[in-house]
Amino acid sequence: MSSFRKFRDAIIQKKSKVCVVGLGYIGFPTALFYLRGGYHVEGIDLNKSLVENLRTGKLPMVEEGLTELARGYLPKLKIHSGYDELGETDIFVLCLPSPIDDNKRPITDYLESSLSSIAAIIRHPVLVIIESTVPVGFTERQAHRFSKIVSLTHDEEFWFVHSPERVLPGSVVCEMEENDRLVGGVTERATELGHLFLGSVFGENKIHRTRSKISETSKLAENAYRDTCIAFANELALLSTEIGIDVREVIHFANLHPRVDILEPGLGVGGYCFPKDGWILVNSTEGTKKLARLIPTARSVNDTMPSHVLHRIKTEMDSEYLAITRFAILGVSYKPNVSDTRMSPSLELISLLRRDGKELRLYDPLVRSNSDLKLSKELGDVVDSCDVIVFAVNHSWMKDALLKHDLSDKIVVDPTGSLQEERDRFRKYIGLTA
Amino acid sequence: MSSFRKFRDAIIQKKSKVCVVGLGYIGFPTALFYLRGGYHVEGIDLNKSLVENLRTGKLPMVEEGLTELARGYLPKLKIHSGYDELGETDIFVLCLPSPIDDNKRPITDYLESSLSSIAAIIRHPVLVIIESTVPVGFTERQAHRFSKIVSLTHDEEFWFVHSPERVLPGSVVCEMEENDRLVGGVTERATELGHLFLGSVFGENKIHRTRSKISETSKLAENAYRDTCIAFANELALLSTEIGIDVREVIHFANLHPRVDILEPGLGVGGYCFPKDGWILVNSTEGTKKLARLIPTARSVNDTMPSHVLHRIKTEMDSEYLAITRFAILGVSYKPNVSDTRMSPSLELISLLRRDGKELRLYDPLVRSNSDLKLSKELGDVVDSCDVIVFAVNHSWMKDALLKHDLSDKIVVDPTGSLQEERDRFRKYIGLTA
Repeated sequence: MSSFRKFRDAIIQKKSKVCVVGLGYIGFPTALFYLRGGYHVEGIDLNKSLVENLRTGKLPMVEEGLTELARGYLPKLKIHSGYDELGETDIFVLCLPSPIDDNKRPITDYLESSLSSIAAIIRHPVLVIIESTVPVGFTERQAHRFSKIVSLTHDEEFWFVHSPERVLPGSVVCEMEENDRLVGGVTERATELGHLFLGSVFGENKIHRTRSKISETSKLAENAYRDTCIAFANELALLSTEIGIDVREVIHFANLHPRVDILEPGLGVGGYCFPKDGWILVNSTEGTKKLARLIPTARSVNDTMPSHVLHRIKTEMDSEYLAITRFAILGVSYKPNVSDTRMSPSLELISLLRRDGKELRLYDPLVRSNSDLKLSKELGDVVDSCDVIVFAVNHSWMKDALLKHDLSDKIVVDPTGSLQEERDRFRKYIGLTA
Repeated sequence: MSSFRKFRDAIIQKKSKVCVVGLGYIGFPTALFYLRGGYHVEGIDLNKSLVENLRTGKLPMVEEGLTELARGYLPKLKIHSGYDELGETDIFVLCLPSPIDDNKRPITDYLESSLSSIAAIIRHPVLVIIESTVPVGFTERQAHRFSKIVSLTHDEEFWFVHSPERVLPGSVVCEMEENDRLVGGVTERATELGHLFLGSVFGENKIHRTRSKISETSKLAENAYRDTCIAFANELALLSTEIGIDVREVIHFANLHPRVDILEPGLGVGGYCFPKDGWILVNSTEGTKKLARLIPTARSVNDTMPSHVLHRIKTEMDSEYLAITRFAILGVSYKPNVSDTRMSPSLELISLLRRDGKELRLYDPLVRSNSDLKLSKELGDVVDSCDVIVFAVNHSWMKDALLKHDLSDKIVVDPTGSLQEERDRFRKYIGLTA
């Protein structure tokens, strides 16, 4: 029997040994789902404190349903902090970061280094599934490189697949289970194996077969599309400010049109994906870099929003802006109801205000304090000690908590438009637009 | 009783005399709806041949349901070609063109000139409803100007309202009846009168009250939003071509994402609205012009598509491009199933091919020939006499008609992706992307 058939049969019988590489936001729940799917699953992460935490049952993030899932399956997950003992793995699932550098170029070092480590230990047929968002052509190039550093034959003894996740932070568990996803092999057999494996965990109708370049481009296009749609809303906010009207009123009325659905404008776009994925698409090749215009412009518009909010504050506070030094920032995560602060536009506004010499008090009970980010614990203290309150992130419970306080002598800045109806309760209300 | 109350009561009793100014794509069906709504309606258009045609029952365009509507109400519509006899009008509804000039600046001359004519004849209270798409602030400025050239008092004896249409060409009658619409007055009383009048014709729940600046901006934002969404699909087509993949495959898979709905890419964006409305929004003021970046970029991406298609033709035909001179263009309207050729990207491709010395035969039975646009009558003749067939517009019946012919020695260019599944029936198939 060919290696391919043996490998396929092992998946069908769920005898394949799976290893999830990278146990962060995506990799950790992914590993639990594969365990639930009936596979023997191990995990590896080079971050030793993360591994320590997991070993003692401490989860890397807060996500609805994750505690329940972990209760059943975390005890069954063998966790490594090095590759030495992973030579028997059949299926490697790479859930590693793929950030961008200061020039907006994709950094694929984590993935490449992991693939080199895998190549160094592996002696038998292996399926490599890359779940990370990668530049177009990456999976194909890595399969080629892999073939040069292992003594295995491509498409006979090893197969490369790109299969991006599509989950919404905050609903990771639910969306990992329910969303359709793509499996794009470098070869047709790779696609078949990937489909077989992922289908056996998530249901085969939910896994759609394609080629790796298509799956890579689709994933990048999905996030670039959402980013561009938000940029439209944000550009409309900039224009509405100039015109002197409320952008939310414009959007409310425009969206009565049967074919129009403008998204919410705000303080900007953050998180681990949107701020970089458009750039990864654009900078996949020299050719795409030269051609792309809309996606980079969208990125730039979204990046400009914290400055716009600062400009609104200065314009509306006028001479008071110089006189008042104490500002409260409520919410530092990149969006409501998550603990993630990566690329948060709130942090960008914080840095702009600090540059102007403002003394800031930061409040966000979802986020852990660290040496760079000192958070106050009591909302009351924060409100009492500041003259200007910036309601930067609309955590679902935070508005009610804020409104319990007397705000009649406060200037309230409200880029998310959450406090518009309560504007008469503040000394001054500063919205995203007029 | 105040003029305002009297005016309002006249609307309630449907005694107001209505005049629709401009009897083209929007004005003509609009007039019929007001007649159907029970008002005495007259119409005026300075285009004498249009007026002659209407007087003899010849409709200005083909639209589903229009013939039926016209059968009942066109005989009741008194049509003028000058303002002399319109002094008794109570409600003027302006459905006039508002194009842009070569510098993308809005041209509002038709509207301004009509308002001057109205000012010259009117001696009693009047409601002016502007249905045209106008730069932000236009309605307010015109109300101000009007107050200086009539002996009537603003908000006591005359009222200005902006109430944009929102119809899809091809479904004008159905959408005019069913879509929600805005009524944005310069003053609150103006909004009230506009709401009363339009509500009495289309149902008051469908008419949403706002201010003129909001209604002007909403209308422009609606079309700029759609244009930007199409530009995203088109930019993705440019990138996919460079990458060497089929953009439609990418979009198909990306749209499996629960929050992604990328539109169709193609030969570009035409018609009377999308190519100009983004520019009207951006160029409404000097300030907005300086701020806008995404909307102008979207316009530019969409404008570039005919050149991209020419580039695809040249690349795929290679040396044959120089050798072959006879090209057929099937479809010259700006989108499928309409007769409108305004700003059609097909016309732009025609002009690019002519610049390269190609002999073109054009076919589009929905469009009338004229001295600038000579159309062939027989599809068979066109196909037989050309080596390259550009399927520029996907009229719903045209694909079947084309496929009745033997195309095995033809090069077929298919920017709309309509013939992808039949690609093996042609000597060569050239899609929008690889």
